[in-house]
Amino acid sequence: MNMVDVILKKKEGKALTAEEIHFFAQGAADGSIPDYQLSALLMAICLRGMSAEETACLTMEMMHSGGVVDLSAIGGVCVDKHSTGGVGDTTTLVLVPLAAACGAKVAKISGRGLGHTGGTLDKLESIPGCSVDETQERFIEQVQRIGCAVIGQTHDLCPADKALYALRDVTGTVGCVPLIASSIVSKKLASGAGAIVLDVKTGSGALMQTLDESIALAQAMVDIGTQAGKPILALVTGMDQPLGTHVGNALEVKEAIDILAGRAGGDLLAVSLELGSRMLVAAGVAGDVEDGKARMKQALASGAGLAKLREMIEAQGGDGRVCEDTDYLPHAAYKIAVPAPRAGYIARMDTTAIGYCAQDLGAGRKKKTDVIDPAVGLIMDVRIGDAVKAGDPLATLYLNRPELADGAIARMQAAITIADERPELPPLVYAAVSPEGVTRG
Amino acid sequence: MNMVDVILKKKEGKALTAEEIHFFAQGAADGSIPDYQLSALLMAICLRGMSAEETACLTMEMMHSGGVVDLSAIGGVCVDKHSTGGVGDTTTLVLVPLAAACGAKVAKISGRGLGHTGGTLDKLESIPGCSVDETQERFIEQVQRIGCAVIGQTHDLCPADKALYALRDVTGTVGCVPLIASSIVSKKLASGAGAIVLDVKTGSGALMQTLDESIALAQAMVDIGTQAGKPILALVTGMDQPLGTHVGNALEVKEAIDILAGRAGGDLLAVSLELGSRMLVAAGVAGDVEDGKARMKQALASGAGLAKLREMIEAQGGDGRVCEDTDYLPHAAYKIAVPAPRAGYIARMDTTAIGYCAQDLGAGRKKKTDVIDPAVGLIMDVRIGDAVKAGDPLATLYLNRPELADGAIARMQAAITIADERPELPPLVYAAVSPEGVTRG
Repeated sequence: MNMVDVILKKKEGKALTAEEIHFFAQGAADGSIPDYQLSALLMAICLRGMSAEETACLTMEMMHSGGVVDLSAIGGVCVDKHSTGGVGDTTTLVLVPLAAACGAKVAKISGRGLGHTGGTLDKLESIPGCSVDETQERFIEQVQRIGCAVIGQTHDLCPADKALYALRDVTGTVGCVPLIASSIVSKKLASGAGAIVLDVKTGSGALMQTLDESIALAQAMVDIGTQAGKPILALVTGMDQPLGTHVGNALEVKEAIDILAGRAGGDLLAVSLELGSRMLVAAGVAGDVEDGKARMKQALASGAGLAKLREMIEAQGGDGRVCEDTDYLPHAAYKIAVPAPRAGYIARMDTTAIGYCAQDLGAGRKKKTDVIDPAVGLIMDVRIGDAVKAGDPLATLYLNRPELADGAIARMQAAITIADERPELPPLVYAAVSPEGVTRG
Repeated sequence: MNMVDVILKKKEGKALTAEEIHFFAQGAADGSIPDYQLSALLMAICLRGMSAEETACLTMEMMHSGGVVDLSAIGGVCVDKHSTGGVGDTTTLVLVPLAAACGAKVAKISGRGLGHTGGTLDKLESIPGCSVDETQERFIEQVQRIGCAVIGQTHDLCPADKALYALRDVTGTVGCVPLIASSIVSKKLASGAGAIVLDVKTGSGALMQTLDESIALAQAMVDIGTQAGKPILALVTGMDQPLGTHVGNALEVKEAIDILAGRAGGDLLAVSLELGSRMLVAAGVAGDVEDGKARMKQALASGAGLAKLREMIEAQGGDGRVCEDTDYLPHAAYKIAVPAPRAGYIARMDTTAIGYCAQDLGAGRKKKTDVIDPAVGLIMDVRIGDAVKAGDPLATLYLNRPELADGAIARMQAAITIADERPELPPLVYAAVSPEGVTRG
């Protein structure tokens, strides 16, 4: 087979055959097809699209391009959750311990921060001693023993996806539904998930900023999972503002602990319950979503969720005392308020800009080799719809380099729009997508 | 400037600024932008297009990415001709000596065979001793002295085009009007042409197989040349069958000599007169096309054209005796006829397949490092519209490896369609494109 012929076929808008998709995915994985040919094909896919069949085929090829984790030793349905990424999006640290405390098995392979979005692995590593690098045997053993584990991707999963993903990042071919969908689902399938709950973010801090695109992505992923014979569903949830109030690694761990300890709540808890209850249903632990929510709330109220988080942190070598006293987490040296430049109502937020502001303070990486400062970030003092007076704090910056404060204050003020009229509040769950269809609102 | 932003802008279908085009052309020339980013951009350009302004801007950037030949020492308007490539397309060897014999200055930088099409340099090199590698000084001195020279591209012309062209060939991004047009015209401008006559082939043996695409390419090139302030026009001519009867390097030199000696004619001469007369007008030698044709015919009848070809061959180190006796050209060992499999009229030819058949016999390169056999090729015995009986020769193969004969006969028979009805004859000149507009027919 000739790669130029494959590129030309897609350039002309034709569907690729299973053999052609196998050929280029295999060539991406083993390095036999040069990057410049792969990137030409990726751009042609972005502009010409891929059918549902092609997308499912690409997913399976990427999944099988490397090893596939066998979780059968754990027993039962291992359920996984994946978020397309957001700001202040700490649902994993809330719902994994709650779901495990309810009896679900959660063997979760997570990622690092990317662009303006945070990553669960970076958050976990802000806990003193906590490791996210485990062998497959220890990973499975931990889930068998305590019901949950959250680790980083082992090296041999989806090498075809790894090659294509790295190339997409530098060739302007990230934003493309079939490529995003196949990348996400291939990794979930390769990591052994028995059932999958997806959280597709939509709004100013999301990869997909429009609702239609977000729903299209959710549908593409649900289609693929269904074709692969896995129970799968997706919620499209709001990223019109940071989901939790805390943005930054140790700060987000603190918020998750505060929620599990019953000291905090809000949208982060609400979305965690929506997603977690569906995980319990998919795992066969709860009969329906309402039952699942009731069980999650029970695990929250009893402290079983917090105890499970501590168990998981300690199993992964971390200092479990953070769960009883968050002062054991790293602290930033400086706290500086971002004052409201005028009175009015919080009307809109540029959530991506807020994420980049936290990144600038050291909470994220601009390039792969950057070292994260686990202590820094920001806490939002307002949400959309709140009334503020001039000078009221919009957010509080947590930083170790005070010279960054002025720039960060200006960026935060620019990212938060204050208007005279009280705005309509954005919904938290925009749509639910299952193999049966889309339910909006 | 960030290359990913440039790619994303074109991916979204927006026009690139002069600064953005300068950035990527310069990065292609100096190697600072990796191939995988350039190929993603090239694919986005193929699928989103480029405006006339962008195309002209890219042309100028590629032209100025390396040296520009200064032909001012020659005096007068140096006129160049470029063909988009065809099969049996030997117009250069007919019209360059005729135009020079009429008093035009022709300083021509030519190319090698590519894919199924032949190249003037390969044809000239089939003449014993003839060199196409000259220094710029010797090139200019030769044109001053005898009025014409045909050599290969010197190394430093259009390095940006060289890089992009090499990448297009392996990434399925060859077929794209703005990329083809800017590539051709940038090289013509960099090689110092004062006026340009273009021969855009259309039909089964051409890069552009439809008339509309061929006219669009001609218009794009005329637009660029006009914006660059150069007299430029294009003819769209038929490549529905090999233009001359001879296909192969020494064979095509022989046909050109036969025409200049008055022993042959046909479509190759007719197209050479159409193009050459316009070169004379562009060079200010003839008042109009009719005057130009009359002068060309006079130079043909007087033998001045053949004498000029001999002068040029000898100036480039070749054996000028080929002009009086073509037996001095290399000969193939075997001559084998391709018989008509049935009676009827020659209805159509797959001219690309005929070109590849000659390549298979050794007349062209499958990869850059292949060595051409100058003697081999084929002579067409029929043209579209001819009546044949079963067994009549369709063509005669000239080959040195008789084991290739059976395959070549089958390919030639498959490439030539014989029908019961006499077909309409395809036109020789489909359209003329000038800065004033398009004249069809």
